[in-house]
Amino acid sequence: MEFKFSNKVEPLKPSAIREIFKSLTNPNVISFAAGNPSPLSFPVEKLQVLANQIFEESPAASLQYGITEGYMPLRRQVEERLRSKFNTGRDFDDTIITSGGQQGIDLVAKVLCNEGDTVVCETPSFIGALNAFRSHGAVLKGLDVGEDGINPDELEAILKTDKRVKLIYLIPTFQNPAGITMSLEKRKAVLDLAKKYQVPILEDNPYGELRFSGENIPTIKSMDDEGIVVYSGSFSKVLSAGMRIGFLCGHSELIGKVAVVKQTNDVHTNQFFQMLCSKFIDTYGLDEHIKGICDLYRENCRTMISEMEKNFPDKVKFTRPDGGLFLWCTMPDGTDMKKLIADFVANDIAVVPGSTFMPDLNRMCYSFRMNYSMPTKQQIVKGVEIMGNVLKNY
Amino acid sequence: MEFKFSNKVEPLKPSAIREIFKSLTNPNVISFAAGNPSPLSFPVEKLQVLANQIFEESPAASLQYGITEGYMPLRRQVEERLRSKFNTGRDFDDTIITSGGQQGIDLVAKVLCNEGDTVVCETPSFIGALNAFRSHGAVLKGLDVGEDGINPDELEAILKTDKRVKLIYLIPTFQNPAGITMSLEKRKAVLDLAKKYQVPILEDNPYGELRFSGENIPTIKSMDDEGIVVYSGSFSKVLSAGMRIGFLCGHSELIGKVAVVKQTNDVHTNQFFQMLCSKFIDTYGLDEHIKGICDLYRENCRTMISEMEKNFPDKVKFTRPDGGLFLWCTMPDGTDMKKLIADFVANDIAVVPGSTFMPDLNRMCYSFRMNYSMPTKQQIVKGVEIMGNVLKNY
Repeated sequence: MEFKFSNKVEPLKPSAIREIFKSLTNPNVISFAAGNPSPLSFPVEKLQVLANQIFEESPAASLQYGITEGYMPLRRQVEERLRSKFNTGRDFDDTIITSGGQQGIDLVAKVLCNEGDTVVCETPSFIGALNAFRSHGAVLKGLDVGEDGINPDELEAILKTDKRVKLIYLIPTFQNPAGITMSLEKRKAVLDLAKKYQVPILEDNPYGELRFSGENIPTIKSMDDEGIVVYSGSFSKVLSAGMRIGFLCGHSELIGKVAVVKQTNDVHTNQFFQMLCSKFIDTYGLDEHIKGICDLYRENCRTMISEMEKNFPDKVKFTRPDGGLFLWCTMPDGTDMKKLIADFVANDIAVVPGSTFMPDLNRMCYSFRMNYSMPTKQQIVKGVEIMGNVLKNY
Repeated sequence: MEFKFSNKVEPLKPSAIREIFKSLTNPNVISFAAGNPSPLSFPVEKLQVLANQIFEESPAASLQYGITEGYMPLRRQVEERLRSKFNTGRDFDDTIITSGGQQGIDLVAKVLCNEGDTVVCETPSFIGALNAFRSHGAVLKGLDVGEDGINPDELEAILKTDKRVKLIYLIPTFQNPAGITMSLEKRKAVLDLAKKYQVPILEDNPYGELRFSGENIPTIKSMDDEGIVVYSGSFSKVLSAGMRIGFLCGHSELIGKVAVVKQTNDVHTNQFFQMLCSKFIDTYGLDEHIKGICDLYRENCRTMISEMEKNFPDKVKFTRPDGGLFLWCTMPDGTDMKKLIADFVANDIAVVPGSTFMPDLNRMCYSFRMNYSMPTKQQIVKGVEIMGNVLKNY
C-alpha cells in the first residue's frame, strides 16, 4: 500500500525535540535539551492522597465520559484564578479545558485558519505551535523577538499588506525558546494593532507563573476590552506535564466553536485528572506550590548563568531570563552549528539547535536552547564546563 | 470582535448527543440516549490499588511528558492482544496510543483528506466520526447498512466514479447506532474493493469485544495482507471512558505520519492512565473483566428486546444486536419524528433521533437509537412501557 497524505500534513516532520527526547536514554548524557518541568515540581504525595479520595468519592464520574468544555468546577477555578490574580478574562470571555496547552493552540489554528492563510509568530518560537500551524496548511511569518519582544512596526507592515493573516501567535512571557519577556509598551502596541486590523492574538502563557525575578508584567489578555485575544494556559509546568491539562480563555463565540471542534478531536480531556487538578487547587491552592518551583528554577538558572559567565568565551551571547525554563545562546554569525552540536553530542552534552525553532525553515540560526529545569545543579556545573571547553575551539 | 471561522469548521454544529448528555440532569428522565458504558463496567477498586502502586513506583515517569506514540509497554500489550486474540496486525503494522478512539479517527482523517475529498461511510453512522470528517472539510457519502452491512456493489459504484474517495469508514461489528454486524462475506468483498481501488479502510471497532451472543466474525484488518486497513480500538467501553485511551493499528508508514500529527495535537495521551491501563492488563488481563461486562449487557439487551416485543406496536421495527451498546428502532415512513421525540421527552424518556446519525444531513430518517448499557433493568422495563404507550398513538 502506498499512502498519499493530505497536502497540509505531507511536508510535516517530527519535532526534533521529541526525537531528541526519545534518544536520551544514554545515562551519561547531560541533557540541556529537555522542555520538561523538573520532576521535583510534581506534588506526588498530595496528588496520591487526593486521587484516593476521588476513587472513593466519585468513582463513576471520574471514569465516565465528561462534557467537552471540561469539568465545571475546574473551569470555574481557572476563571476565578485568572481574574483575581492576573486581571485576565471578562464577561464576554469563556473558558475551556484542553488536553494540554498544545491542543488549545492546535484547535485555535484549526478554527481560524484555512490552508494558505498566514500566522504571524515570533522568531524563534515554540516548535509545537509552529508545527500545529503547519499541520493546518498555514503560512508562517516570523518576526524577530529581540531583547523584549517583536517590533510592532514590523508587525504592522505585515498586517497592512497581507490580508490573509488570521492569527498573531505570541509567547510574551519567558518566551520559549528565547527566554525573553515582551515589554508592557510592546504588549500595548501589539494589542492596538490587532484591534486596528481585527486579527486575533493567541497569547500562549505556559510559563507566566514561573517568575523568579523582576516585576510582573500584565498579560496582553488583561488589557483586551473587546475579546480579540485568546489566552492559552497550562498546568503542565506547575502540576504535571504528563496529565495533559491546559485551558483557553477567550471570547465566548470563539470558545464555543473551539468546543465543537474539540468534540470531534478527543471528546473531552481525561476526566479523572481534571477532577484531581480541581481538588488540588481546592485543597492546597497553587500559589505556595508554584513558589517552590520558582525557588528551584531561580537557583538552577543562576547557577547556569554564572557557570556560563565563567566558562563560555565572550563571543557567546545568552539571554538572562526572569522566569520559565529556558535560555538562549547565540554564536557569532557564520559558526558551523552542525559541527558544534555534533561536538557537544560527542562530549555527551545535548542542547536543542536553534534552527528547530525557526518559522522560516531556510533561515540560518546560530543559536541553541538550554534548559535549566531538568538538570541537577551538579549536572549544570559539569555540563557547562564541558561546553566551555568545546566552545573554545569556535 | 467578529470572528471569521475557517471554511471547514464554520458549518459544524455541536453533536446532538453531547448536547442531550449535557441536559440530562433531570433525575426523573429515563435515558436511553447515552453512549456511555455502564459505570458497573469500571473496575474501580482494582484501578485504585494499581494507581497507588504507580504513585509509589513511578511518580516521576507517570506525571512527566511521555513519547507521542504512547507508553511502550502498553503499545506492546495492545499489539500482542490484537495478534493473539484477533489475528489482527502484521509485521508491516505499527500501533499508536490515541486519546480515545475519537482522536484516532480524527487524525486518520487529517492525515488522508484534503478539503473536498470524499469519505465513504455507513448510513447511519457514528456522529463523532462524521463530525470529525466534516471538520476536515471532507464530503460524506453514506451507504445504507441494511441488516448485515453495506452493499459492496454500491461501494464499487462510488469507488469507480469518485476519484476523490480517500477513506472508507466502517464500524463492522455491533455498529453504532444500528447495532448490526457486517457479514464475513461482505467484509471480504469490501476489503477486495479497497485493494482494487487502493482506498484505505478505517475499521472502527470500539465494541468488538462486547459480544454477548452469536459467533465471532474476523475483523477486516485480520484479513489485510497489504496494510490498507487501519484499525481503531478503544479502552473506553472495557475499562474507562473518561480516561480517553484508544489505539490505532495500521501500516507503519501511515502510523508514522499519524504520530507526527498527534505531536502537534496533544503531544501524547495522559501518561498516568496509560501506565494504569498497562498495569491492569498485566495484573488482571482483560478477558475476565470483559466477560462480566458482556453478561451485564446481554441481560440488559434481552430485557429491552423482550419488553419492546411486549409493549411496542408491530409496525415499530428494531435490530437485535449480538453485542455492543445500542439497538435501532425504525418507525413507518412518514412518521412525524419531531413530534414523536418530543412526546417521549414530555414523558421523561430520552432517545437519540436517528437524523443525528445521517452522513447526508438532508436525508429523512424514521429511526431512533436506544442504549441499553446505562439504564438499570427496572428503568428499561418502566421506560419501554412508557414508550409503548406513546407509540400507540403513531
